[in-house]
Amino acid sequence: MDLILYFDYIGTMVFAISGTLMAAEKRLDIFGAMFIGFATAIGGGTLRDMMLGDLPVAWIRSTEYFFVIIAGVAGTVLFKKLILKLRSTLFLFDTIGIAVFTLIGLKKALFLGIDAPLAVMMGLSSAVVGGVIRDTLCNELPLIFHREIYATACIAGAVVFLVFRWFNVPDIVNESLTVVTIISIRLVAVRYNVAMPRISLTEDKKE
Amino acid sequence: MDLILYFDYIGTMVFAISGTLMAAEKRLDIFGAMFIGFATAIGGGTLRDMMLGDLPVAWIRSTEYFFVIIAGVAGTVLFKKLILKLRSTLFLFDTIGIAVFTLIGLKKALFLGIDAPLAVMMGLSSAVVGGVIRDTLCNELPLIFHREIYATACIAGAVVFLVFRWFNVPDIVNESLTVVTIISIRLVAVRYNVAMPRISLTEDKKE
Amino acid sequence: MDLILYFDYIGTMVFAISGTLMAAEKRLDIFGAMFIGFATAIGGGTLRDMMLGDLPVAWIRSTEYFFVIIAGVAGTVLFKKLILKLRSTLFLFDTIGIAVFTLIGLKKALFLGIDAPLAVMMGLSSAVVGGVIRDTLCNELPLIFHREIYATACIAGAVVFLVFRWFNVPDIVNESLTVVTIISIRLVAVRYNVAMPRISLTEDKKE
Repeated sequence: MDLILYFDYIGTMVFAISGTLMAAEKRLDIFGAMFIGFATAIGGGTLRDMMLGDLPVAWIRSTEYFFVIIAGVAGTVLFKKLILKLRSTLFLFDTIGIAVFTLIGLKKALFLGIDAPLAVMMGLSSAVVGGVIRDTLCNELPLIFHREIYATACIAGAVVFLVFRWFNVPDIVNESLTVVTIISIRLVAVRYNVAMPRISLTEDKKE
Repeated sequence: MDLILYFDYIGTMVFAISGTLMAAEKRLDIFGAMFIGFATAIGGGTLRDMMLGDLPVAWIRSTEYFFVIIAGVAGTVLFKKLILKLRSTLFLFDTIGIAVFTLIGLKKALFLGIDAPLAVMMGLSSAVVGGVIRDTLCNELPLIFHREIYATACIAGAVVFLVFRWFNVPDIVNESLTVVTIISIRLVAVRYNVAMPRISLTEDKKE
Repeated sequence: MDLILYFDYIGTMVFAISGTLMAAEKRLDIFGAMFIGFATAIGGGTLRDMMLGDLPVAWIRSTEYFFVIIAGVAGTVLFKKLILKLRSTLFLFDTIGIAVFTLIGLKKALFLGIDAPLAVMMGLSSAVVGGVIRDTLCNELPLIFHREIYATACIAGAVVFLVFRWFNVPDIVNESLTVVTIISIRLVAVRYNVAMPRISLTEDKKE
């Protein structure tokens, strides 16, 4: 399904942009922005492929990802005002990106014979690890550890995929529903400001 | 030897608990706790397997680790008071865990034909890397870099194993002695507050 | 070309020394210094080999790297005054090291059939990732993200290599020119205090 590939490139570019914005916030130089742009965009898929043993990792098997990321980082540096204005569009693309990344990771792991719960983990790690690396490199506590329904949306989508696959729903229908599930949950969660409960060691007090 | 497998699960669960406790200290949400629980529990073995090329990495080859970690994290979130009371028990299990992790990493590397000093490194990285990842993700200077005889205990145990193996001591005896060595050294070190000397760039002054 | 192997060992040792110096700055203990010394020295090559699937990774295939790193860390701890006096010599060796690391990574990736731009990335990651890991473990914003022409020198050298290779310049001549290019650019950049422009999200103001 070609659409998935296009969304994969879009997601990759949006992740590169998000890395560059973080680099700009930290006032890094252009090389720092490139490094963090790459790490954000390919970090999740790279860890997934290294753990699965699907080597060389995806992004060094064809140059498309390379140029997509370079374009994302350079575009952000050159047109930063435009990019900042597009934040809500970018947020939408980011959400499409994590949905597609989850689906790609999940399908690859299932194809390689990995058990369902672990295949969900591979989908999840494709979607979230890039952002964790970005934040850790920039010396920040990873955003997804304390804000927003992000992983939950990915897991829900992955479970939808597995259930419908069990009932032999055709792939194209199933994949669309998976992506739509992830996108809907995340958009609704952000719209209504839903977050996972925090945990603490002390008695919970009203906040 | 089935006992090693049980201890491996126990060590994995205790590592997941230690990750969750750190996440709670940082007031992360439940997903953050899960992420750090997983990273702490499987980080060392994952890096070891990726470096050795023993892929897919161990924890995605069977679902046991997955459920052990989920149980560890969920149990900690649900029964945090109990967990906090059990700290000294957990410390004992943690010590058993690193002893078993060291042994498993060392044996796997030797089995794959890695030279002895590097096989010790593989044992050591199985035991310590998870904690380093946990602390780095939580923006803390890794604990094992400045507290406690932890790595030293692992290295000593690994050397005991290699020496006794050289003299053809039966595996079951040798493995038991290795584990006991690591546990003893760590318990004694913590009991008597022994730590590695710190290093510094300036003249050493009395502290 | 044996010279490359020697320079590889020298670069590895200098990277181990730089990790130890950072550990000393943070007042870590000897194990912390060893860990960071190893991570700095083998981090880049390890990530490169794990991404390429050239496993087990290079440093656990022969014990030379192990002993070179141990010597670098132990030497720094024992003779810190001498090491601190040698800073400019170390800087030269460090520059030679990154030049050789870039060349080794680039050649390995090309040999494995990786496309040219991605092979340059593999050369670059061999040279810079160790330092990024060192700084991240020590809770610092990675130095190369905001100081100095470091990556630029590596990329320029790699491009020189690819161009001359296209024109069938003999390997030994080409490799020498690559290394000399990287070293020259970095030395000149540091001498004249050239740095990459910083990026920011707000209007650029005079600084």
